[in-house]
Amino acid sequence: MKKVLPYDSVNFDDSTGELVIIDQTRLPLEEVFLRLHTPEQVYEAIAKLRVRGAPAIGIAAAFGLCASVLPLPEDDKEAFYERFFEISRYIDSSRPTAVNLSAALRRMESCFVANLKSSVSDIKVALVREADNIKSEDIGMCGAISENGLSLLRKGIRILTHCNAGHLAVSRFGTALGPVYFAQQKGYAPKVYADETRPLLQGMRLTAYELKRAGVDVTLICDNMAATLMKQGMIDVVMVGCDRVAANGDTVNKIGTLGLAVMANHFGIPFYVLGPSTTIDPECATGADIKIEERPSEEITEHYFKHRMAPKGVNVFNPAFDVTPADLITRIVTEKGIFRYPYDFNDK
Amino acid sequence: MKKVLPYDSVNFDDSTGELVIIDQTRLPLEEVFLRLHTPEQVYEAIAKLRVRGAPAIGIAAAFGLCASVLPLPEDDKEAFYERFFEISRYIDSSRPTAVNLSAALRRMESCFVANLKSSVSDIKVALVREADNIKSEDIGMCGAISENGLSLLRKGIRILTHCNAGHLAVSRFGTALGPVYFAQQKGYAPKVYADETRPLLQGMRLTAYELKRAGVDVTLICDNMAATLMKQGMIDVVMVGCDRVAANGDTVNKIGTLGLAVMANHFGIPFYVLGPSTTIDPECATGADIKIEERPSEEITEHYFKHRMAPKGVNVFNPAFDVTPADLITRIVTEKGIFRYPYDFNDK
Repeated sequence: MKKVLPYDSVNFDDSTGELVIIDQTRLPLEEVFLRLHTPEQVYEAIAKLRVRGAPAIGIAAAFGLCASVLPLPEDDKEAFYERFFEISRYIDSSRPTAVNLSAALRRMESCFVANLKSSVSDIKVALVREADNIKSEDIGMCGAISENGLSLLRKGIRILTHCNAGHLAVSRFGTALGPVYFAQQKGYAPKVYADETRPLLQGMRLTAYELKRAGVDVTLICDNMAATLMKQGMIDVVMVGCDRVAANGDTVNKIGTLGLAVMANHFGIPFYVLGPSTTIDPECATGADIKIEERPSEEITEHYFKHRMAPKGVNVFNPAFDVTPADLITRIVTEKGIFRYPYDFNDK
Repeated sequence: MKKVLPYDSVNFDDSTGELVIIDQTRLPLEEVFLRLHTPEQVYEAIAKLRVRGAPAIGIAAAFGLCASVLPLPEDDKEAFYERFFEISRYIDSSRPTAVNLSAALRRMESCFVANLKSSVSDIKVALVREADNIKSEDIGMCGAISENGLSLLRKGIRILTHCNAGHLAVSRFGTALGPVYFAQQKGYAPKVYADETRPLLQGMRLTAYELKRAGVDVTLICDNMAATLMKQGMIDVVMVGCDRVAANGDTVNKIGTLGLAVMANHFGIPFYVLGPSTTIDPECATGADIKIEERPSEEITEHYFKHRMAPKGVNVFNPAFDVTPADLITRIVTEKGIFRYPYDFNDK
């Protein structure tokens, strides 16, 4: 994949003990790599969305914790222990609702506890190894998703995608975009149409950037143009990521996904959801059980604009996600395989 | 309608001989009324989209022509004739492809020719009367569309609309928004959801503004949120305008309309198209015969933003309109009546 992907979005520099991330807030205009080694820097990078995408945040937190504790003295294990947990909890508070962030840090803490009898020096080694494992496992999972997704593609395939579920959001490859990179390397010459994804423009800022950077043929459109592309026969498949999948296959993803699924259904275009199996929540029976986050109106009315574009005081409705019913989804692709409706995720 | 609508977007001040328009480029932040009386001012206002919406442009051109020629001397009819046609052709060149602009000016020229034997003073009176007629006829037409559309509404109705087909775009009332104002005056308390309408944000800048200004309960959403509102039962009907309608009812309108029609169809929500009968083109059999204008990529990637939001050099596809097939349209409403699929516009 070296041929296609220019870099991993989250890295650990063993020679300097630094967390290295690409600053996603500067994209797509500038490629700025940040080298971070203090808890405050790591906190700021996560809080300010310099690193985003659930898996990427988790990996950055794990490596960021390593970078923060590596310089600590090794003569007092108790002091090291206290400081380690202090820093872990501090980084954990950088984005309160990010599940991968907490999960990665809990795992680092378990690693510490499992190595309690070792020297501080050995604990440091174990911690870096554990953070490496978190990243490697994510790469493996994304690779398997990509491989499975690739089997649904063919030479010259034309793909519509929404938001950003690419390598910037994970360790490497991506989920919805992983198969695109695999197809590109295999010489399929895939053509991707990227929805800009209002209001926060992840498609325009990130997906268009990362695909173009990797040499993939990508064309940017506004969200409301998807239907006319489908009608004109310009789209072969739709591929999107997922934030949460209910036990029956109902899928929560970035706002706009439901509309694409309805349109794809109408025009007879396959609609694929791709993500790790950990996104499937067996506790959640259907999409009806899921509460959708509403976000501030300013995201729509002014955030990226030169000035406020809406009349002052107008009502705004800004749901961040929508729920696509399972019967509108042609396949759900995880690292475990390709599932088809009606969804039974225990059958592999 | 005085109770609901604050002003007409295009007026002629008889006491001063000036064209008076609200500057739509300053909306929604400022309500600035411009008083224009030279050909150059009228040309600039149309070219810079200070007045927009096909009917509004036509009326502004007619009144603008009057305002420009009223101050001319009355002692030399031949000189007046020459200058009149010179100014008319000049204003006509302000937006080359605007049909209503040319049509209104041709009509003013015919009026001049029909009054050739009168004095210059009487010709001036006839010209102002003709421009008044153009506006009055448009008001009558919009009123009839609004009245017909109103019959499809009821108390507490919740309407989704796209782009701006309101009073700012015409003489008074509007086409898609006309029935909303009639419903508001009748005490139906309609609730409107306005798509922001990327890339040029006519919904956010103009529709949200004009409905709020008139006291209508309006809520702004991004285009990609419409599906989730429909799924949650928040929308009773969709009402949109039209730029051109084929003989079979296939409808060209602002990009995004097709997607709304597909979604409304999926969720069982009536989808209404409203416009003057002159929008129906008997020479155009179906939507397949219509070529769609593609516009510059910068409209999507930078126009309203603080800085460029897309990677440099990325491909962009920016179709300005789409074609909604007749079978996805529940009713087409003109001043002549309410038509239903399969469409035969000669049956009234």
